[in-house]
Amino acid sequence: MYFGHDTGIAHSIFKLNGFEMELHANIRYTAHRLLCEEELDMIFEYGLSAAREDFYNITRQVREAVAKSAVKDGIAVIFCPHTTAGITINENADPDVTRDLLIGLNKVSPNNPEYRHVEENSPAHLKASLTGSGVTVIIDGGRLVLGTWQGIYFCEFDPPRTRKFFVKVIGV
Amino acid sequence: MYFGHDTGIAHSIFKLNGFEMELHANIRYTAHRLLCEEELDMIFEYGLSAAREDFYNITRQVREAVAKSAVKDGIAVIFCPHTTAGITINENADPDVTRDLLIGLNKVSPNNPEYRHVEENSPAHLKASLTGSGVTVIIDGGRLVLGTWQGIYFCEFDPPRTRKFFVKVIGV
Amino acid sequence: MYFGHDTGIAHSIFKLNGFEMELHANIRYTAHRLLCEEELDMIFEYGLSAAREDFYNITRQVREAVAKSAVKDGIAVIFCPHTTAGITINENADPDVTRDLLIGLNKVSPNNPEYRHVEENSPAHLKASLTGSGVTVIIDGGRLVLGTWQGIYFCEFDPPRTRKFFVKVIGV
Repeated sequence: MYFGHDTGIAHSIFKLNGFEMELHANIRYTAHRLLCEEELDMIFEYGLSAAREDFYNITRQVREAVAKSAVKDGIAVIFCPHTTAGITINENADPDVTRDLLIGLNKVSPNNPEYRHVEENSPAHLKASLTGSGVTVIIDGGRLVLGTWQGIYFCEFDPPRTRKFFVKVIGV
Repeated sequence: MYFGHDTGIAHSIFKLNGFEMELHANIRYTAHRLLCEEELDMIFEYGLSAAREDFYNITRQVREAVAKSAVKDGIAVIFCPHTTAGITINENADPDVTRDLLIGLNKVSPNNPEYRHVEENSPAHLKASLTGSGVTVIIDGGRLVLGTWQGIYFCEFDPPRTRKFFVKVIGV
Repeated sequence: MYFGHDTGIAHSIFKLNGFEMELHANIRYTAHRLLCEEELDMIFEYGLSAAREDFYNITRQVREAVAKSAVKDGIAVIFCPHTTAGITINENADPDVTRDLLIGLNKVSPNNPEYRHVEENSPAHLKASLTGSGVTVIIDGGRLVLGTWQGIYFCEFDPPRTRKFFVKVIGV
């Protein structure tokens, strides 16, 4: 995003002492939104080494992306490009919560003898669709609008894997 | 928001050979987006008193936020800043649907003796991650693009609570 | 992006009657973001004939909408306006995965004698809230940012139905 000066053309025909005159005035104007290359690239990619089935807190990385974007008001889209992992928001305080969530999700999506997928990770695929591939978070005054107890988590359901996720920041 | 061409006035008083001259230069500038102070704060916060586990229809508040924003085309992000509540979209006609959804979710996420979280509300945390913390709805022609039978719901899973939710409106 | 009114300087050197004159014109201008007509209508609607309970791959339609929008960087919001269908992202390679997902979802959300909704499709309503009504995908360099194995799916849970979905493209 670029904030700053730009140049436009003021064009006018006016009369002075009987002379009709055409004016082309170069205008430097501050402000507005110049869409330059930097702005086009407000997508941030992060890597993750997911050794075990777990919820990895990525709130710090998302905050960093928002800070780098310099966007004050808008949204951040956090997206997981994998099909046996997801993104969710849940409690950041007591680690027993994400532990319990994993236990709960394994009850919700257990293995099933009817499954045919050769990789034998269909339960992980279902968990990915249940938690979802991404979340959208509001940015207000340069800060993520998260509740006190909310953290953003990358959910690994088919470890061990080398993973990545994207943060796209959209300013208004 | 304003779309199209507009005309501005360049106004200047300058002196030339002792004549004070006033210049009005017509400037045509193509397009843009009128952004006034109000638009800076296109995040709307709503409170909610959630006495019981239930789906609270918040479609009216979301429509109100969109109307206040004056955004004609864009998206609205509805976000819940709590970890034992969520946002979902489902049927707005027969109240038996949301009643059945609660029964169903309690089957999907029952209590579990293995859970350790001291607040003993891990089933509510799981329901929050299953429904999700937010939804993104399209705005077209100043209206929410919702199906005839769709309503937007705040889902309370750990009552009674005083809750809030946010609506962020993004215009294009 | 620029908010509010601003003042710029029109600066020009021109000649009049042999005098070189320098003009500084103060300009108040509102505005900026260039919005052309095409950009105003970047919502795309697609129909779907959903004969059976299944995951219908709609990635092609979403890519087409992004291409038509000519948006290079931004997001695409894919939204389902129905309450017994959803949108999810999952594996696009082995068709056994979506087959297994349907089996898994039917285990997660089976019928229940306690359900009261007269249409008797409450399990489908619950599946819709579990997968979600929409997904938001990042656009970078004119392309959807999807993982190699990811496809976008319309999930039909209450067939047979004639359905539709929307793709809203937001450029930055």
